[in-house]
Amino acid sequence: MTRPGGRTARVRAAVLRAAGDALVEHGLAGVDLADVARRADVGRTTVYRRWGTVPALVADMLAEMAEDSLPRTDSGSLEADLRANALLVVATLTDERQGPLFRAVLAAASCEAATAEALHRFYAVRVAEWAPAVESAVARGELPAGTDPAEVVRAVSAPLYYRMLTGAGPLDEAAAERAVSAAVAAARAGVFVAAS
Amino acid sequence: MTRPGGRTARVRAAVLRAAGDALVEHGLAGVDLADVARRADVGRTTVYRRWGTVPALVADMLAEMAEDSLPRTDSGSLEADLRANALLVVATLTDERQGPLFRAVLAAASCEAATAEALHRFYAVRVAEWAPAVESAVARGELPAGTDPAEVVRAVSAPLYYRMLTGAGPLDEAAAERAVSAAVAAARAGVFVAAS
Repeated sequence: MTRPGGRTARVRAAVLRAAGDALVEHGLAGVDLADVARRADVGRTTVYRRWGTVPALVADMLAEMAEDSLPRTDSGSLEADLRANALLVVATLTDERQGPLFRAVLAAASCEAATAEALHRFYAVRVAEWAPAVESAVARGELPAGTDPAEVVRAVSAPLYYRMLTGAGPLDEAAAERAVSAAVAAARAGVFVAAS
Repeated sequence: MTRPGGRTARVRAAVLRAAGDALVEHGLAGVDLADVARRADVGRTTVYRRWGTVPALVADMLAEMAEDSLPRTDSGSLEADLRANALLVVATLTDERQGPLFRAVLAAASCEAATAEALHRFYAVRVAEWAPAVESAVARGELPAGTDPAEVVRAVSAPLYYRMLTGAGPLDEAAAERAVSAAVAAARAGVFVAAS
């Protein structure tokens, strides 16, 4: 067990920050444990012993990102909740550090299976965090019974990620708003009712 | 000008195929012009003179992919046309060669601006190819006047790419069907009417 704020936690935070910097600068293939240790001002053997491999280090970075990510908004309105989520995605993908970091992790996941699994876990955590917004809307009768909450949450993020990948326009509030409206219209039409 | 089927065209095809193989195997940072020339059985100076840099080579590969990509289906029905597009995206992303190639190119685009621009041009070509399916639906009165055709086409692809990136489930016919239904429901609700 680690004491929050203790030495172990401080070492982890420093190493994961250095790993993120290296990943953004060099991509997965250019990340080196000894270099990360030097950047973090931490002993090399600590890094080798605790993480061992670069994919394990990146996986722990994603676990920390999931731990530290913001809790969902609970406004009592489906559209307001999903809008808060969409704006959070836009803010993350356009953030000076988080944006390049996500692009680097997505790139790393395309060629490294353990990183892909860690990234999938990250998204599973985020989807599970926001799913109750949709569950509440179903309970209130705003969406059809049997609507898959995870699919609605993913439908909000998908066009924002696709816009980033394909350069189809700015990632801004208007894009967030359109993503929410599209997801809600599809959900109301019963598109995300799980097949039984 | 190159004669189709002539020596120049054959050299280009061989070099771009070798470049794709190298990109899938090693990622952008591991692609080397001399290695590509050797794999393609083409003189090294030909590759240096004609493409010069790895990003230029990858950009030409994307241009070839856009040239060779399938023309749109014209079934006379919006849903059938969009379904054909969604199934084409699924077939591409799950194809033994095209799938890893797209993931490698998306990864390369995240760290190399010229590759990102070439990728954006590829998607612009594909969206322009399929936009008339939506324009016809607007003309037939199936969708609200002022609907942005490109946004509808992108709305079909977005959840399929997002599913691939986040590992949220299989890329199959059911996913394609849901992507079409969601895009059409949102389009009917007026979500993609361009702001004036």
